[in-house]
Amino acid sequence: MAPQYAPSLRSRLAPLLIILQAAFIIIYVFFDKVIIDKQKDKDTFSNFYAEFQDVNVIVIVGFGFLSTFLVRYGFSGSGFNLLVAVVATQWAVILKGFKSWYDGGEFTLSLRSLVDAEMCAASALISIGGVLGKTNAVQLVVISLLEVSGFVLNTWILETLVKVHSLTAIMMLHVFGAFFGLMLTWVLFRKGSEQQFEKETYDRKTGLFSMLGAVFLWMFWPSFNSVLVDSPKRKLEVVCGTYLALAASVVTAAAVSVLSSPKGKLNLIHIQSCILAGGVAVGVASSAVHQPWEAMTIGFTAAVVSTIGVQYIKNHMLLAFQCHDTSGVLSAHGFPGLLGWLAHLLLQIKDCEDHTIAIRFAVFHICTLLITITMSLSMGIITGVLSKWSFWRMPQDNKCFDDQAYWEVNTIIIIGTINK
Amino acid sequence: MAPQYAPSLRSRLAPLLIILQAAFIIIYVFFDKVIIDKQKDKDTFSNFYAEFQDVNVIVIVGFGFLSTFLVRYGFSGSGFNLLVAVVATQWAVILKGFKSWYDGGEFTLSLRSLVDAEMCAASALISIGGVLGKTNAVQLVVISLLEVSGFVLNTWILETLVKVHSLTAIMMLHVFGAFFGLMLTWVLFRKGSEQQFEKETYDRKTGLFSMLGAVFLWMFWPSFNSVLVDSPKRKLEVVCGTYLALAASVVTAAAVSVLSSPKGKLNLIHIQSCILAGGVAVGVASSAVHQPWEAMTIGFTAAVVSTIGVQYIKNHMLLAFQCHDTSGVLSAHGFPGLLGWLAHLLLQIKDCEDHTIAIRFAVFHICTLLITITMSLSMGIITGVLSKWSFWRMPQDNKCFDDQAYWEVNTIIIIGTINK
Amino acid sequence: MAPQYAPSLRSRLAPLLIILQAAFIIIYVFFDKVIIDKQKDKDTFSNFYAEFQDVNVIVIVGFGFLSTFLVRYGFSGSGFNLLVAVVATQWAVILKGFKSWYDGGEFTLSLRSLVDAEMCAASALISIGGVLGKTNAVQLVVISLLEVSGFVLNTWILETLVKVHSLTAIMMLHVFGAFFGLMLTWVLFRKGSEQQFEKETYDRKTGLFSMLGAVFLWMFWPSFNSVLVDSPKRKLEVVCGTYLALAASVVTAAAVSVLSSPKGKLNLIHIQSCILAGGVAVGVASSAVHQPWEAMTIGFTAAVVSTIGVQYIKNHMLLAFQCHDTSGVLSAHGFPGLLGWLAHLLLQIKDCEDHTIAIRFAVFHICTLLITITMSLSMGIITGVLSKWSFWRMPQDNKCFDDQAYWEVNTIIIIGTINK
Repeated sequence: MAPQYAPSLRSRLAPLLIILQAAFIIIYVFFDKVIIDKQKDKDTFSNFYAEFQDVNVIVIVGFGFLSTFLVRYGFSGSGFNLLVAVVATQWAVILKGFKSWYDGGEFTLSLRSLVDAEMCAASALISIGGVLGKTNAVQLVVISLLEVSGFVLNTWILETLVKVHSLTAIMMLHVFGAFFGLMLTWVLFRKGSEQQFEKETYDRKTGLFSMLGAVFLWMFWPSFNSVLVDSPKRKLEVVCGTYLALAASVVTAAAVSVLSSPKGKLNLIHIQSCILAGGVAVGVASSAVHQPWEAMTIGFTAAVVSTIGVQYIKNHMLLAFQCHDTSGVLSAHGFPGLLGWLAHLLLQIKDCEDHTIAIRFAVFHICTLLITITMSLSMGIITGVLSKWSFWRMPQDNKCFDDQAYWEVNTIIIIGTINK
Repeated sequence: MAPQYAPSLRSRLAPLLIILQAAFIIIYVFFDKVIIDKQKDKDTFSNFYAEFQDVNVIVIVGFGFLSTFLVRYGFSGSGFNLLVAVVATQWAVILKGFKSWYDGGEFTLSLRSLVDAEMCAASALISIGGVLGKTNAVQLVVISLLEVSGFVLNTWILETLVKVHSLTAIMMLHVFGAFFGLMLTWVLFRKGSEQQFEKETYDRKTGLFSMLGAVFLWMFWPSFNSVLVDSPKRKLEVVCGTYLALAASVVTAAAVSVLSSPKGKLNLIHIQSCILAGGVAVGVASSAVHQPWEAMTIGFTAAVVSTIGVQYIKNHMLLAFQCHDTSGVLSAHGFPGLLGWLAHLLLQIKDCEDHTIAIRFAVFHICTLLITITMSLSMGIITGVLSKWSFWRMPQDNKCFDDQAYWEVNTIIIIGTINK
Repeated sequence: MAPQYAPSLRSRLAPLLIILQAAFIIIYVFFDKVIIDKQKDKDTFSNFYAEFQDVNVIVIVGFGFLSTFLVRYGFSGSGFNLLVAVVATQWAVILKGFKSWYDGGEFTLSLRSLVDAEMCAASALISIGGVLGKTNAVQLVVISLLEVSGFVLNTWILETLVKVHSLTAIMMLHVFGAFFGLMLTWVLFRKGSEQQFEKETYDRKTGLFSMLGAVFLWMFWPSFNSVLVDSPKRKLEVVCGTYLALAASVVTAAAVSVLSSPKGKLNLIHIQSCILAGGVAVGVASSAVHQPWEAMTIGFTAAVVSTIGVQYIKNHMLLAFQCHDTSGVLSAHGFPGLLGWLAHLLLQIKDCEDHTIAIRFAVFHICTLLITITMSLSMGIITGVLSKWSFWRMPQDNKCFDDQAYWEVNTIIIIGTINK
């Protein structure tokens, strides 16, 4: 009797994970001499290490605890996030190592390659936010493998064909992740799962766990935007700009949240996504932002767009397009990412004195966006169709948004006693 | 009907925040060329960055989650803390930039100026701890603007008139914040709000959230005390001294908490404020503390004073002076700050061989304290009177200590089921 | 009447803590000129500081919140962890300073000596995990003093007699801590306390608090393994190796947890211990691990052993040997530690070209383990017998696993209301 509870785990997840991890190890054995990049990191190890850990905190605690807000889905929110992050990071390291080996270089491992890989994992985690609660762990692992492959492919196309700077290419992760996740949740949508939306709520405690994730994301976002910047001068500019944009986002998100709410109250979960909007947008635009007021204006606008998106567009998407975006990744990462892209374009053109260069830049910049969106939409649809396959034993409607389908949960009501 | 729920938010908070943020951006546009200080930070960026982030964690996670202990006020505790921190930091950066521009310098932005500003924000957050749960978000924003202005003015007076070292001046933030908050809560006291004190309690889970904030404060306090110290030698001394003082505080606070409790039990919320007492006191005295035993003795004494303060003085203040100090800022920051000031005086005099210098130092040191206390008391009363203005729509008594007045809270009791 | 509630605290804990802290201060006064090591740390302060803080986070937040999973024991889990960590660290600093003074050197204090001491504290915290919920705070303090003394003695024996490298000696902390804790809980076992095992459960919220501790341990474990490595080249190798081993552990632990669970579900608490297994094993073997695949294979194997240990051995130990290991320290630290020791031996022998050296190494390596196990078992039994002394007022059976025995807990059930 017992094993019936979580069939997708025993017969699908466990074998998949063991095969996957064994394959990862075998790949390293095959490459035998993976070079741990001593030369390059020798002097900068200590400098870089703290920023590497900040990115680590963003990916594990930040995204993980941001996903714990669903009242009956906290274990899955944080636990599956860790699992997906770890699979995606390992896979991205291997893909990037393979690419560099294919290009005639060596499969090197360094703090920078780990950070690079965690950025790819972040884009997978953004996508997964869209289907939070509606897929099982096997599907999540499969999705993350495909998402990371798609994102690495997208970065490679951008760098090779459009000659985009690698930092700009990797910062498209927000746009890529958001549209990928949107397609995914659109393809996976089932009428029946709506009846479970009553579990799509938060209580006083899960709201705080989620807040914890949000503030760790918020605090370390300057590291996320600056970690791959080489020049210390630029790094400082990016850090200060991101900090100010994030600050502007908090103030603006609170104001717009109140103005757009029917009851005129704040909504903690909405605010959690929107306080990051400025950081996301400035990150995408970072190589063109030089003045504090530019960063702050971007932060202000991004928070307005993001908050309005969360309040109005999310429901509209569900009713009009049957696209149910659990964590609101379109508003949290999609719109701010697009806005950052636009700001980058405008600022770059403003700074250009030569018309020809400006137009040339604009064409390449528009291509970057079009390629990214095309790639993310098509990969998202393909991944959605693949992960809809019954082989993965997608959770039944009444098992959605519920830890009990996957985790041993012993919930006991504590009868309170007051000591006076 | 709906908008009646939180009138202070829609008609007061939202416009204020938008005007404020727009003004902040316009100020940066006006100054146009805010210089991001590349020269100074060039070499030290990487070294300084980790400490900057530690201070960031203290201000956002530390103070934010320390304020989540009230059982129905967790969203406000952490959410308003973030909002206030962000407004106060932005305002402090501008004030300090303006001052430096006024002095003939340039409006520079650097990691150091952000840290400086976060210290000012910390003093505002300390003050706000005193009125936690009894004011609305509009009042908090207004209070934080006035508090930061007052604190920057106080630092300026100390540095200009009394020629106090800038580090000593900024470390008076604990004394300034505590006495400011005390006056505030005294002016804002209303007989009726007492009936709500039953919401002034914590449960097993909010106690843990609060503990999380407390341990983050505790762990990163050495960074808070040492971040503005220039010499690496002194920095190490301050870090080791603060660590030992904090350690002594934990041991002592636990002992005194047991001895002073009527039931002989520990009180988690009391201990959370008192474990920091040593760090606060050593921070204030830091430029005179050189030996480990000095730091540990200060930590020991500060914890004794602070714990006794929390157990006895807090209630006494309420009954005798109608001064209701929600987070116990007097005991957590006021007394340890005063003790640190005293320790600084004694240690400095002990080290002086020349009587004249000792007396001269003592006079200046006493002036520092008197000015700070006068400034904080008067600014606190002024701010209290201003924020009592009915224009701000102070929360009714039955809305105190309750998130529902400001936040959409969907609390659902989870009926527990036991899987065996 | 009142004091009867927690007799062990008022008449035992409080005096012990005050005497202890006073003694610590007096020791520093006696040594008078404790040298804060300026020379050595001068250049490396900033580099080392971030890693020092990571270790601090591991010891305070990591171990502290990992112990909050028991549904009625969260305050004790996190609060007593802080108390024990602080006592153990201070005691270890003094022991190590005394040893260096005894050897003709000076009692120096530096970031490195604090990190060293926090490692000793970590070994005490591991031991204490075995008796979590079954001892009072006085016993915990006494146990931690004896454990740290035993561990420092063990390190000293290994370094002096077996000429083991100091890093290898200190990394035996996992094995030492686990077996010490096991003996402790075996000696302290009482038939009656079983009836309280129903409190040995977790709910949706305590599971998440515990998860928070686990991910902080997981994220900063690379710092824990690399902080005492001197060469930046080796440091990078250790960081990358530990990261990959930890990643492999997460994937493997999830798979094995599903396969070994009767219901085929994941168990969050089990997984929390097992995701660290790879980090523990690689840490013990670190000086012999050079290739990524070696680290990943160790991580894979450690997670398999650890997960199976948690699922099967824990219950078996209880039924067969009356040894009740609350946090499963044998599986979380003991087995992975032994595995790391074995991996170290195998890898070292593989790399040796000369047979004589290989045999010589093997003999010394086996001696290291035998000494550590003998020391930990004997010290554990002695400590267990000492702490069973009725003088410490061991908690009655019905007070086990319950905060109410030591903390003022005002648990109020919040009647939820839904705002729609």
